[in-house]
Amino acid sequence: MISVEEALERIQQHATPRASRLMQATESLGCVLAADIQSDVDSPPHDKALMDGYAVVATDIEPGVELSIREEVTAGDVPTKRVAPGTATRIMTGAPIPDGADAVVMVERTELIGGDESVVRINSDNVKSGQNIMPRGQSIRSGDVVLRTGRTIRPIEMGVLAECGATEISVYPRPSVAILSTGNELVAPDTRPKAGQIRNSNGPMLEALAQRAGGTAVNLGVGRDERDDLEQLVRSGLREDVLVLSGGVSAGVLDLVPEVLAANGVEQVFHKVHLKPGKPVWFGIKSDAKGDKLVFGLPGNPVSSLVCFELFVRPALGSLAGQDFSSIERRTAHLATRHSRYSDRPTYFPARLFECAGQLQVEPLAWKGSADLRTLADANCLALFPPSDSAFAEGDAIEVFLL
Amino acid sequence: MISVEEALERIQQHATPRASRLMQATESLGCVLAADIQSDVDSPPHDKALMDGYAVVATDIEPGVELSIREEVTAGDVPTKRVAPGTATRIMTGAPIPDGADAVVMVERTELIGGDESVVRINSDNVKSGQNIMPRGQSIRSGDVVLRTGRTIRPIEMGVLAECGATEISVYPRPSVAILSTGNELVAPDTRPKAGQIRNSNGPMLEALAQRAGGTAVNLGVGRDERDDLEQLVRSGLREDVLVLSGGVSAGVLDLVPEVLAANGVEQVFHKVHLKPGKPVWFGIKSDAKGDKLVFGLPGNPVSSLVCFELFVRPALGSLAGQDFSSIERRTAHLATRHSRYSDRPTYFPARLFECAGQLQVEPLAWKGSADLRTLADANCLALFPPSDSAFAEGDAIEVFLL
Repeated sequence: MISVEEALERIQQHATPRASRLMQATESLGCVLAADIQSDVDSPPHDKALMDGYAVVATDIEPGVELSIREEVTAGDVPTKRVAPGTATRIMTGAPIPDGADAVVMVERTELIGGDESVVRINSDNVKSGQNIMPRGQSIRSGDVVLRTGRTIRPIEMGVLAECGATEISVYPRPSVAILSTGNELVAPDTRPKAGQIRNSNGPMLEALAQRAGGTAVNLGVGRDERDDLEQLVRSGLREDVLVLSGGVSAGVLDLVPEVLAANGVEQVFHKVHLKPGKPVWFGIKSDAKGDKLVFGLPGNPVSSLVCFELFVRPALGSLAGQDFSSIERRTAHLATRHSRYSDRPTYFPARLFECAGQLQVEPLAWKGSADLRTLADANCLALFPPSDSAFAEGDAIEVFLL
Repeated sequence: MISVEEALERIQQHATPRASRLMQATESLGCVLAADIQSDVDSPPHDKALMDGYAVVATDIEPGVELSIREEVTAGDVPTKRVAPGTATRIMTGAPIPDGADAVVMVERTELIGGDESVVRINSDNVKSGQNIMPRGQSIRSGDVVLRTGRTIRPIEMGVLAECGATEISVYPRPSVAILSTGNELVAPDTRPKAGQIRNSNGPMLEALAQRAGGTAVNLGVGRDERDDLEQLVRSGLREDVLVLSGGVSAGVLDLVPEVLAANGVEQVFHKVHLKPGKPVWFGIKSDAKGDKLVFGLPGNPVSSLVCFELFVRPALGSLAGQDFSSIERRTAHLATRHSRYSDRPTYFPARLFECAGQLQVEPLAWKGSADLRTLADANCLALFPPSDSAFAEGDAIEVFLL
C-alpha cells in the first residue's frame, strides 16, 4: 500500500495540461493563459488629464495670471486648438492634453472671470511641467506583453484583456469530469427508495466538487453492478478528460469496476492508499496522445469519496487546467478537546476550525463513521491525525485541511 | 464626507435578503437555504453491514465454530431468510442485516469449508452484538431537520439534500447585477479605439467581480454622457436587484449620472467616502416593497472601481443572497519595504502578499496611479495605509485585503 504522497506523485505524472484552445475572453474567468497577451494600444492612448481643470503652459503661470480660454475638451473629445502662452483649454479628467500644454491646473485653483466666461484666472503658483498629466503609454506601450502564459484570469485580468483588445485568447480549457456512481442499492435523488435502497448522494456531491475545482461536470447517474450497464457508462465517461467513479472498488464480489475499466483500455496505476477513510481508492489512466485520460475510483461511502476527491482529484483537475498541481489549503491548529480515536493510518477526521483568543483551534465532530454525511455537513475542515497508538491531547498541534 | 465604516452601515440597512424562491437542488450550489430541510428517510434505512463478511448471532460464536450459509445479500438486496444459531448469511458492505443476526464478522476472519462453499468457519472470538453494524437511523431519522435555514449549500450539503430527497428547495436567489459603464470616451473591447477613445475595461472586470461575489451579471455595455441614452440604460438596470455604474460620479460637467438616477426614482444615500482611491463613490436606493433596489456609482477609473466594488458592493451582494453582510477577507502583514506615499485619507494600495520565514509580508507595487490596471493585475491584495503625515517603515504591521 502506498502513501498519500506517493499517490500524489503518480497522479501528477499523468495530469498534464490539456491542449490549449481559443476562447472568448468574456468566458475565460478562472482559466489559465496558454499564450502571452500583447497590447495593441498604448495606455493611456494620449497624454491624459488626471483632474478636471485647465490645460496650460507651465512656464506661463504666475499667481493671478489671466488666460483666455480656447476651447473645452472632455473625455472622448479630440482637442482642436493649440495652447499657447496667454491661453488655456478647459479640460476634464481623462481627456487628451492639447498640443502646446504641458500641465493641468485643477479647477478648484481657478476662477472664471468676464461675463462670457471666456477668461480664467489661475490662483496657483508653482505649476510644474507634467503636473496632473499621465503621459501616453505610461501604463502600457503597444506591443508590450501585459499578461504572461500561466496567468490565471481573475476579474482584474478580465479588465486588462478588454483594455488591450484581447477578445479571443488562448487558454487551457476547463477539464471535463464525468461522474459515475455505482451500486445496485442506489436510486436517483428524486426517487423514493424501496427496501434495501438508498439515494445516490455521491453523484450530486462529486458533481459540485468538480465544479468548485474548476471542472465542467457531466453526471452520468447510477451504474448498476452489471457488466453491460457499467461498460456502456464507462465508455461514455472515457470521452471526458477525467472519469470519477464512486463505489465498486472495495473487495465485494460484485465489484466489477476494475475489471470493466481494464476491458476498456484503462491501466491501473495504483489501488489502495495508506489513509483513513479512503483506503480502497483506485487510480488508472487510459493513454491518449492528447493527454492521458484519468480515472479515479473513489470508495462508495460519501465521506471517503469527499476526502479522496479533495486529496487526489482536485489537484489533478488544477493541473489539467494549466495550474500548479497543488493540494487543498491547509493550516495548523490546536486541538480544542482530547481526541481518542486513533489508527495506524493517517486519518482525515471531520472537524470545526475556529479562532479563539487569536489562536486557531480545531474540534473534531461527533462523527458516526464514513456513511454519516450529516455530521460531515457541520464540518468546515478535515483534521489530519497522524498514525498513533495513543490519544491526542487538548492543545496538540494538528494539521487541518479547509473544506 | 463619511467614513468607510459609516458607508457600510448605510449600505447594510438597505441590503436585505430578496424574497426566497423554490429552486432545483442541483442548481443551488452557493445559495443560502430559506427554509429548514427535513429528511423523508432514515439514514441508514436499515441496520447496515459496515464490512464484507458474515451476518451471525453474536452469542453463537466461539473460535472455530462452523455455520451453514443461508444466502448471500449484497447492497440493494433484501434478505429473505432469518439467521438462527448455527447459520450465517454472507453479506456485503452496505447491505441490510437479516432478521435474527446482530453482528457481522469480517470476511478476513472466516474460511469457507466444504466443496460447495455452503459452510463457513469463523476464526474470530469475542464477537459482540452490534459489531460492524450501523443501526437504522443512526445518522438521520425521518422527519429530522438535517439542514437549517441560513445554511450555505456547499458540495457536502448537495449530498445531504440528495440523500434526504430534497430535490426542490427554498433558497435566497442569487442577486442580479446590472453593470453599466459610462463615458463618451469608451468603446467596446472588440473595437479599435480612435483618437481620444479607450476601451471599456471596467465593464468586463465588474461583470466578473459580480459573478465571483455570487451574483448573476447583466452587462449593459457603455452609456454615453447623453441624457436619453443614459436614461434608457438606467431604466433597464433598475429592473435588476443591483445597478452598478462606473464613471460619471465625479465633478465633470457631463456627469449626468446622479441627475438621471434622481429622475428615475433613485434617492441618494451618500456621495463621497473618506478613502483613496474611490472618494467620489455614490450610493442610492430605489424603494421597493420587494426589497430596495441598490444603486452604486463607482468612479470611472478601474482601480477605484475595483476597490469600491470589493469594499461596498461585495458585502451588499452577500446580504441580498441571505449571507452575512461581511466584508472582504483581511489579514495583518508586515511591510517588506518602506512606503512613502501617504495621505490624509485611508489608502488602499495594490500590493503583493507573501510568506517569508513563517511571517506574512506585504510589498506595495510600483503602481502608477488609478488608471494603471496593468500593475494592479500583479497584485494579490490591497494594503490599507491609514491616514498619515509621514512614511511607513519596513516591518510596520499593515492590514491587507485579499483579492
